[in-house]
Amino acid sequence: MYNHSELKVLVDKALMNLSYNTEAPRLIDPVRYILSIGGKRLRPVLTLMACNLFNDRINDAVMPAAGIEVFHNFTLVHDDIMDQASLRRGLATIHSKWNVNQAILSGDVMAFISNECFLQAPAESMIKVFRVFNKAAVEVCVGQQLDMDYEKAVIVTHDEYLRMIELKTAVLIAASLKIGAIIGGSDDKDADLLFDFGRNLGLAFQIQDDMLDVWGDTKIFGKKQGGDITANKKTLPLVKAMEKASTAQRKELQELFSGNETDPEIKIKKTISLFDELGVKSATESLIREYINKAFVLFQKVSVDEKRKSELTTLAGSLIGREY
Amino acid sequence: MYNHSELKVLVDKALMNLSYNTEAPRLIDPVRYILSIGGKRLRPVLTLMACNLFNDRINDAVMPAAGIEVFHNFTLVHDDIMDQASLRRGLATIHSKWNVNQAILSGDVMAFISNECFLQAPAESMIKVFRVFNKAAVEVCVGQQLDMDYEKAVIVTHDEYLRMIELKTAVLIAASLKIGAIIGGSDDKDADLLFDFGRNLGLAFQIQDDMLDVWGDTKIFGKKQGGDITANKKTLPLVKAMEKASTAQRKELQELFSGNETDPEIKIKKTISLFDELGVKSATESLIREYINKAFVLFQKVSVDEKRKSELTTLAGSLIGREY
Repeated sequence: MYNHSELKVLVDKALMNLSYNTEAPRLIDPVRYILSIGGKRLRPVLTLMACNLFNDRINDAVMPAAGIEVFHNFTLVHDDIMDQASLRRGLATIHSKWNVNQAILSGDVMAFISNECFLQAPAESMIKVFRVFNKAAVEVCVGQQLDMDYEKAVIVTHDEYLRMIELKTAVLIAASLKIGAIIGGSDDKDADLLFDFGRNLGLAFQIQDDMLDVWGDTKIFGKKQGGDITANKKTLPLVKAMEKASTAQRKELQELFSGNETDPEIKIKKTISLFDELGVKSATESLIREYINKAFVLFQKVSVDEKRKSELTTLAGSLIGREY
Repeated sequence: MYNHSELKVLVDKALMNLSYNTEAPRLIDPVRYILSIGGKRLRPVLTLMACNLFNDRINDAVMPAAGIEVFHNFTLVHDDIMDQASLRRGLATIHSKWNVNQAILSGDVMAFISNECFLQAPAESMIKVFRVFNKAAVEVCVGQQLDMDYEKAVIVTHDEYLRMIELKTAVLIAASLKIGAIIGGSDDKDADLLFDFGRNLGLAFQIQDDMLDVWGDTKIFGKKQGGDITANKKTLPLVKAMEKASTAQRKELQELFSGNETDPEIKIKKTISLFDELGVKSATESLIREYINKAFVLFQKVSVDEKRKSELTTLAGSLIGREY
């Protein structure tokens, strides 16, 4: 059994040692840059932990795990262009450090670098794990499309919002676990249980992220409060507020998010005060708890000795146990 | 044995019948659009012809062939953003019909749709053909990077230029043939011969394209003469001219391509007159002939009955036999 920090070291090493076609160094410099500026390596660590549930030979899972991280960073590079974000993990995004064309092209090559990683999976499970990965990759694109569509929508329903974050965030976390399980030699039932565990965990994780934007402690969270509100992003608290609002309150919310309120401080203050009036915080907390509970019920059903589950239990708990 | 038009029908049908995740229709509309506005389907037809050299059961190669065409169109969508091109095959490019963000994201999903096509290759050859495809995909990105780098370079050498078009254009044509051969059951020697045949054919094809821009008959070629000259593109005639030029002529060329000459008609006229002074046309024609000859010598070595080679011989000849 490997612990969390041992697995993160393995992932970081694999990412550092990726071999590139370096004939055009300008293509690869941004790839090395984005992969070197940190991140928790959550998804590849989950892959290795899921593999390690079933098997102590986790080396077979290292390259596909690295492939998932490269893919995840590919989506960040292109999302940052689309969102015109200038910072990522506190450092310049690729399109702002280089230019948009460079970010498009270096992002593109990352998609094929992640393919290369999957092509190094063990032959007996490669096709199966590649299919799981590729389905998730398509779904992440669909989720990003819905996110873009919903930015312009006046009202997004609870179900629409949940499906969007499921596709954009949860399925890749779910696939990361399933891929590790398959390579570790699990049966289909356990692999699917781990997928659903990850899906529910991913939903809880994203909703918590939405919540931290509104009620998070800036010092712990490390982000400015109300960033999503300023950016007109659809979040679970906003969706809940629209659901619960009276006609007058809904009008007020729509006015706040119409673009007419130009002072971000006033917009944030008024929005949060409406959220509080409507009891949105406790409704959101209940939903997070619901998904956490579902996740752990599914995880318990995985037919592996409890002792082997401890690292994954601790990691899952730490993901959704942040203070707010 | 299938003829060219039968194979094109098979490719078009496969592309029309691709199954998509349609949960976010805005994501897929541009994909359907770009795949429906025509094109010769050269690469997938080459895949099927190469398969058909060895085997009459070509159905196994149809999905990978479609995957190559989807990948090729993915590169066109993103290249058109980078080049700020508003037209493709006489119709609006995706970023001009929709917007840049849409073209990035719909392009991205096409990369994973082409993966899906490869994941439907026959199990016994899938890993092998996927590796050939993915290596080519990375190299196309490297070629596009070199093309971008060279736009800003004052002098590009003959060797640099040839390597750039090899990566950007020739390797995908080469890979298309090799993939078909592998699925058709060829041995490694014939598959590699077909790859090198395609590489040389691709080089001849691209150099001919450069030549048609300068000396092509607008009516036959269907493009405005001198487009590459106006766009400051590095082409084989320009590279040859720089090689052969006296110090004074080189200065004149550099001045013409410095951006100071703002009248495109004058720039085109003066450039072509320098090309003619320097005998660039016949030097370029010799090079095309050299690659064609190399290509056909390689093709002759493929250990397949001459009768089976007729369709591919005709297609290859028609590619590089255009009037100029």
